[in-house]
Amino acid sequence: LAARLRHIPPTVFSEMTALAVRTGAVNLGQGFPDADGPPALLEAAQQAVRDGANQYAPGRGIPALRQAIARHQQRHYAIGLDPDTEVIVTTGCTEAIAAALLGLVDPGDEVVVLEPFYDSYVAMIEMCGGVRRPVTLRAPDFRLDVEALRAAVTDRTRLILLNTPHNPTGTVLTRDELAAVAEVAIEHDVVVVTDEVYEHLVFDDHEHVPIATLPGMWERTLTLSSAGKSYSVTGWKVGWATGPAPLVEAALAAKQWLTFTSGSPLQPAVAHALDHESEWPRALAGSLQERRDLLCAGLAEAGLEPRVPEGTYFATTDIGHLGWLDGRRFCLALPERAGVVAIPMQGFYDDLAEGRQLVRWAFCKEPAVIEEGLRRLASAD
Amino acid sequence: LAARLRHIPPTVFSEMTALAVRTGAVNLGQGFPDADGPPALLEAAQQAVRDGANQYAPGRGIPALRQAIARHQQRHYAIGLDPDTEVIVTTGCTEAIAAALLGLVDPGDEVVVLEPFYDSYVAMIEMCGGVRRPVTLRAPDFRLDVEALRAAVTDRTRLILLNTPHNPTGTVLTRDELAAVAEVAIEHDVVVVTDEVYEHLVFDDHEHVPIATLPGMWERTLTLSSAGKSYSVTGWKVGWATGPAPLVEAALAAKQWLTFTSGSPLQPAVAHALDHESEWPRALAGSLQERRDLLCAGLAEAGLEPRVPEGTYFATTDIGHLGWLDGRRFCLALPERAGVVAIPMQGFYDDLAEGRQLVRWAFCKEPAVIEEGLRRLASAD
Ligand SMILES: CSCCC(=O)C(=O)O
Ligand SMILES: CSCCC(=O)C(=O)O
Repeated sequence: LAARLRHIPPTVFSEMTALAVRTGAVNLGQGFPDADGPPALLEAAQQAVRDGANQYAPGRGIPALRQAIARHQQRHYAIGLDPDTEVIVTTGCTEAIAAALLGLVDPGDEVVVLEPFYDSYVAMIEMCGGVRRPVTLRAPDFRLDVEALRAAVTDRTRLILLNTPHNPTGTVLTRDELAAVAEVAIEHDVVVVTDEVYEHLVFDDHEHVPIATLPGMWERTLTLSSAGKSYSVTGWKVGWATGPAPLVEAALAAKQWLTFTSGSPLQPAVAHALDHESEWPRALAGSLQERRDLLCAGLAEAGLEPRVPEGTYFATTDIGHLGWLDGRRFCLALPERAGVVAIPMQGFYDDLAEGRQLVRWAFCKEPAVIEEGLRRLASAD
Repeated sequence: LAARLRHIPPTVFSEMTALAVRTGAVNLGQGFPDADGPPALLEAAQQAVRDGANQYAPGRGIPALRQAIARHQQRHYAIGLDPDTEVIVTTGCTEAIAAALLGLVDPGDEVVVLEPFYDSYVAMIEMCGGVRRPVTLRAPDFRLDVEALRAAVTDRTRLILLNTPHNPTGTVLTRDELAAVAEVAIEHDVVVVTDEVYEHLVFDDHEHVPIATLPGMWERTLTLSSAGKSYSVTGWKVGWATGPAPLVEAALAAKQWLTFTSGSPLQPAVAHALDHESEWPRALAGSLQERRDLLCAGLAEAGLEPRVPEGTYFATTDIGHLGWLDGRRFCLALPERAGVVAIPMQGFYDDLAEGRQLVRWAFCKEPAVIEEGLRRLASAD
């Protein structure tokens, strides 16, 4: 195994889903819905296969999808994009992250990243030879600590890797928090790469604000998103990166060698959905909010008082309340003890004291599945 | 732009297809067929979308596809594979190449590679900090020079990157040539990574021999292939890597962070085709052979005597015959002069004297398209 990978553990999501499959447990771990996206989306994919969209799409993505992404950014955020130079299509947001980091981070560069971090961020920073500088969103409220951010950004910072709505904590960064990030980014003249895949999955009166819309930020921000979460087709892996041409080109420079292109019949389908099913993600958010409330009430009843998330599909709990010290051991024992799978969060922290007892639960499941999971938790010893 | 990408030009295939689109030229450049794969394959993909195969596939690929790949290797090559540990699904062969190199090549490692090389090989070797050691298949017959291979492999060699049937030359390495590679690989204890995406597209009585089937080679060979060429769905990007578990794991270790997974509804469709349309690729090869003959005859008539390929979809010509010195300038002028796009091969060579005047022509097009291209070439000045 090459040195760049030697110290990176395998993704916890594969591990925990394999555990769920093996044990027949209710899978509240990996974040994928058990109901698929809108019928018109699924029909459009079938139509694209019939229409012959089966050969290589352009490396940047098909024009129709790039144009639909530009219209989406205009409609939701009043961001004007040139679809030919300021948008590329990627194999999900995962490839967008990989390509952005490979395209921008040199060995020794520092990357400031919110902790807890999504596991591919850490892996790709390591693969690039970058040095991560975590800024911890601390329990129980998981807000941005602006002083910690200021302390983390230095002359060696290449970029700030943001994620809002934030997986796994469910924090939606406020306009004030984002303004603080913007101030630091501008002051130190650093780039922001922001993973906004949960952009439409926000609850109550929380609002998702793309940091690219803040003054002085457009020209230094590469925004990543995907259709997977917004349209409940996580397996299609159709994502995108948008921003000023130089940042988009840097990601494309890497991406062309990672996959070249992908999902040719899925791209026109996503274009169709962005244009013609533009209300669907908000309806999904409404339904998810009910499921959030169902899960959170049940977890509280089981003695696992959760942080009620502002966005995403995840709720986090501190299992210290139950007398467990180690979330990973808790999660590995959970299928046998309760027939449920959840995600230990400690792998998303450098600061083990912060993350050791935290566990993430997904609520992007049918209410009956969540209820069954809760029933099992309630009756576990 | 990060240093690892700074000296890598963008992929010539995107450039030349964009040129074809812009000029309305007949595109005999990038290798994609203009007729799609078997109806049962296309139907299976639509069925998979309807059946709900729309959420994350496992990182290794769905079990049904891994099992079908194992059966394919058994049926065609008598290779027995454990689908759980010796097969992973990738986003086309492109991702398999990227993941294999990121997983195996450390900075400073030498990679022996056949020249002319597919452009992603060079790019990924550079991104890994590897040093390429080309072994040139020399015009006009493009055979392996075993002495040159022996001279290229040293104690610093990490792996030999093979490609047979070979793009762009159309050479199908013979059993004797492969035995020579095997001897060198075993003697120096190096790994072989072999891109065999054109495995079924061989002509006349040429036979594709996977190097993994040679004595002593299974345990040191990672074999890459895909459905794109064999089943004429180049845009689906469903590929795979097979071999001993440690080599497969090395590729998976990188791949999980590049895309995690992809193409969830396309994976069951490819599984179906591998099992139920196993004769289709041979029939495609038969039809391609006729189109090869059509293209080669027409190129010869236009004064561009080609190397008649043994496999792949490509024929190469030396444009020196026409008095041109530079294939890239020839190809950039060709749309305007003749309304045709072809691929200059010089970017696939370190040795410019070898590659400068070589041009590649694709014949995976409908006969009428090839005929139109030839008509245009014949009447060009
Ligand atoms: C790419 S697998 C992980 C899915 C996901 O986004 C999550 O569970 O956090
Ligand atoms: C991945 S784009 C290039 C397609 C191809 O294999 C070729 O034209 O050689």
